[in-house]
Amino acid sequence: MMKFYYSPGACSIGIHFLLEELAVPYEAVRIAIKDGEQFKPDYVGVNPKSKVPALARDDGSVLTEFAAIAHWLAHSFPEKGLAPSGLENGARAIEIMDYVVATIHMQGFSRLFRPAKFAPSEADHTWVQDMGREIVTKAFGVVSESLGDNRFILGDRLSMADSSLFYVLFWAVDRQKLDLPRNVADYYARLRDRPSSRKVFHDEGIVFA
Amino acid sequence: MMKFYYSPGACSIGIHFLLEELAVPYEAVRIAIKDGEQFKPDYVGVNPKSKVPALARDDGSVLTEFAAIAHWLAHSFPEKGLAPSGLENGARAIEIMDYVVATIHMQGFSRLFRPAKFAPSEADHTWVQDMGREIVTKAFGVVSESLGDNRFILGDRLSMADSSLFYVLFWAVDRQKLDLPRNVADYYARLRDRPSSRKVFHDEGIVFA
Repeated sequence: MMKFYYSPGACSIGIHFLLEELAVPYEAVRIAIKDGEQFKPDYVGVNPKSKVPALARDDGSVLTEFAAIAHWLAHSFPEKGLAPSGLENGARAIEIMDYVVATIHMQGFSRLFRPAKFAPSEADHTWVQDMGREIVTKAFGVVSESLGDNRFILGDRLSMADSSLFYVLFWAVDRQKLDLPRNVADYYARLRDRPSSRKVFHDEGIVFA
Repeated sequence: MMKFYYSPGACSIGIHFLLEELAVPYEAVRIAIKDGEQFKPDYVGVNPKSKVPALARDDGSVLTEFAAIAHWLAHSFPEKGLAPSGLENGARAIEIMDYVVATIHMQGFSRLFRPAKFAPSEADHTWVQDMGREIVTKAFGVVSESLGDNRFILGDRLSMADSSLFYVLFWAVDRQKLDLPRNVADYYARLRDRPSSRKVFHDEGIVFA
């Protein structure tokens, strides 16, 4: 059975959501980032990058990086309908996932959640976080333009690309209480209301303040 | 004809390399990041994210994000042999490109090149750059493991994934003079020796110190 490595509430929650939407068998393995478990030899043996998510397939080989795992999962189970159809949608899905990971997460939310990785002096952390909030806000404006009146980011059907927005919107709405463009907030409400979201929040032990 | 938007020596040089390897017609449009041209209304109209690379296709629609552009280009011209064959190679290619963009570039080289985006106080910039160098060095260790004795990152044939390593290795070797694992340094020497690399360096006006 596939082994899915995650840390509660981390970006891996997007892959967790995708696995539930696919409704395929997997074993979820918790690697608590807050306890530094990603640096322990057992996990370094799985993923030398010491990051989640990671996916060990049935043959034991491990795949890392959000977009790569999402692409592989969606295309491994094409009958589930979460792989974008055609090259143009495929490229658009990668475009969205990369914007989410490399910009909204790595440049935006990382500044909000872990300012000490950016500036050593605590007096500068508000400056770092303000920049992070600015990056995130600008980016959700771009997402809002792309989304328009669509139900999901690529149109009227859920796809792997939505799983990436699911995790940054979870952070934006449920963790940071950010104001979002109306269509983006409504879109997240639709994602959050799916049975797979509720199962994932429950299984990861997410507590809502 | 496709329009390719780039800034000299920026990450867009990887897409430039891929376009030359594909040997397809395109017009290269220079957006000088150092002069802030990415924020001018003309370019914001093309790419509201104010980033390079961007690719306007024949129908005028614009694609952004390195991995998305590379995926679309390689699969639009399958006869050129730069699209990975099969799902596993396809996922591995995305895995590599995302690691290059989100980790090696955004977390590593951004700290080395633009420490002021991380910490406001100039006294802290050495601290920021040291962290960037550490991230890059660890990451090239991971790349070295993946590469092994292969000629190219996915095996014995060049693919779209190599175009992403081309740009960070250009920065590592030609800009930052970093020490790299032997197999990685040899691999970059092979990429750099291709006629397409030489043409791209020439066309972008790259000066080697």
